[in-house]
Amino acid sequence: MNKTTNNMKDICIKLLNDRGVGLDDIADIVYDLQKKYVPEITKEICLDAINRVLGKREVQNAILTGIELDVLAEKNLLSEPLQTLINTDNPLYGIDEILVLSICNVYGSIGLTNFGYVDKVKPGIIGRLDKMGKETNTCHTFMDDIIGAIAAAAASSVAHNAEDDE
Amino acid sequence: MNKTTNNMKDICIKLLNDRGVGLDDIADIVYDLQKKYVPEITKEICLDAINRVLGKREVQNAILTGIELDVLAEKNLLSEPLQTLINTDNPLYGIDEILVLSICNVYGSIGLTNFGYVDKVKPGIIGRLDKMGKETNTCHTFMDDIIGAIAAAAASSVAHNAEDDE
Amino acid sequence: MNKTTNNMKDICIKLLNDRGVGLDDIADIVYDLQKKYVPEITKEICLDAINRVLGKREVQNAILTGIELDVLAEKNLLSEPLQTLINTDNPLYGIDEILVLSICNVYGSIGLTNFGYVDKVKPGIIGRLDKMGKETNTCHTFMDDIIGAIAAAAASSVAHNAEDDE
Amino acid sequence: MNKTTNNMKDICIKLLNDRGVGLDDIADIVYDLQKKYVPEITKEICLDAINRVLGKREVQNAILTGIELDVLAEKNLLSEPLQTLINTDNPLYGIDEILVLSICNVYGSIGLTNFGYVDKVKPGIIGRLDKMGKETNTCHTFMDDIIGAIAAAAASSVAHNAEDDE
Repeated sequence: MNKTTNNMKDICIKLLNDRGVGLDDIADIVYDLQKKYVPEITKEICLDAINRVLGKREVQNAILTGIELDVLAEKNLLSEPLQTLINTDNPLYGIDEILVLSICNVYGSIGLTNFGYVDKVKPGIIGRLDKMGKETNTCHTFMDDIIGAIAAAAASSVAHNAEDDE
Repeated sequence: MNKTTNNMKDICIKLLNDRGVGLDDIADIVYDLQKKYVPEITKEICLDAINRVLGKREVQNAILTGIELDVLAEKNLLSEPLQTLINTDNPLYGIDEILVLSICNVYGSIGLTNFGYVDKVKPGIIGRLDKMGKETNTCHTFMDDIIGAIAAAAASSVAHNAEDDE
Repeated sequence: MNKTTNNMKDICIKLLNDRGVGLDDIADIVYDLQKKYVPEITKEICLDAINRVLGKREVQNAILTGIELDVLAEKNLLSEPLQTLINTDNPLYGIDEILVLSICNVYGSIGLTNFGYVDKVKPGIIGRLDKMGKETNTCHTFMDDIIGAIAAAAASSVAHNAEDDE
Repeated sequence: MNKTTNNMKDICIKLLNDRGVGLDDIADIVYDLQKKYVPEITKEICLDAINRVLGKREVQNAILTGIELDVLAEKNLLSEPLQTLINTDNPLYGIDEILVLSICNVYGSIGLTNFGYVDKVKPGIIGRLDKMGKETNTCHTFMDDIIGAIAAAAASSVAHNAEDDE
């Protein structure tokens, strides 16, 4: 990984923090997703996996783009009808799920299943983001999917390492 | 829809039945997935949606291919190492999830989330198929994902119709 | 299709026009893609297929989102480093291709191959958009992929109808 | 990468050879795809990238599954109507493109565009496979897409390394 990609990673971690999510919050979800399958799992193993995921260019691009759209919607800076579609998290606006596909596929198709699950069940920080997006002026239309996808991809990475040491 | 596609649909429904799944079993899952969001839902609405999904060529191709691989694995007719990968439903063999992507995407990205959820929670017939695949000589490596994907796509179709009358 | 979706379609066609693309320009590409396989093809058949594609919610969402990002980049209103990634059409920024996947998959996987081809060969209006994006202050990072994906999906729809009358 | 994955890689390379394709044939395609963008490219750089691609489990699974279906179709061992769909490479059977998505996405969405292009233009060995599949009793319905996808993924890997040293 070169300097640019490392810088991008730091920018993304800062952005996630600014929007209210620490890597630790994501690690909690990864831990819960995998503890049934990987008995020797620790929070540190989960954090390592999250760091691997955040080191990928595809993932960084999706984070930068999704959060930008959330922030612009929050500031009412998008054109209509996109402004309303994103700000109200319209159920027929599926671009958030499409965008994060590039995150959950980073370690293969296992990530997809985990993503669908957390997107529906909304454990931990994901539920809090979703609630905040609905009850306050904050817009987390992309953010909750981004966090779910990072957790799902990190869970796949843990699973692959456990099975395969690859 | 022309005659060929209609014939293909009948062949697929018969194949699902032969492998132990009725459209009614799938409708139960669709109903449970959507009742929270579509209060006026009925089993008939779910069956209509399943029939729309099964009328699509992409879906028919995925059903024919996936079940063929299950049956060949059951009869020990595949080459190694593929025979063992499919017969034991190896966790690093993700082709079953890839194959059914073409099913769950038929009504857009909402299908993906529903698929991930049912693939993890394994409600109703999906749990029974999974158990049977593990405890008997039957191989349902592709079958449980196929059923989950049909249910997920049908749930999306119900959701789209409810929101949009499209 | 209900009123909302019809309105959305009109908004999208107007947006494409405002950014310099008429449905006729897209029909030229569809015609060239399919004339080898569908001898009875006409420009009207191509326009019908484009209209079917533009009637889909998934497609409308992708158009609205992609063009918004282009326009914001043009006005220098995005945060860094996203502003530079989009404005320079950075080769490692693949979100444009991801976003339009939801368009090209609308009529199945045939759309994917057609999309990859036009994205590389850049026929007609796509080449002109690409050139304009590189040589002027206009940003067409998402636009050229959007047009390519609409053409690819419409070509698939023509192919399906020709084979299958579905 | 552990022993199992390495063994799987060797099995896949042997399978490709048995079906008439050497890694060198694939390297020719990668070279042609990237020489315009990466002036310092060599055949060795292309072979290294192909080896990285073939080391991935997702890729190995897709190769094993696709070639198995080709071989079974060739021996007339599949059930109808799947036997005819695969053996005649029916244009509405898109499972081959779906299956190899897991290969071309291994290094991000750039792979997709390259895949679509080679799938349409059929350079070098891909054209020869396609012709053989059509004119002889050999079935290469999956094989030509597999080779195209390996070449596309390897080209993306070369592009990423050139831009990013990652």
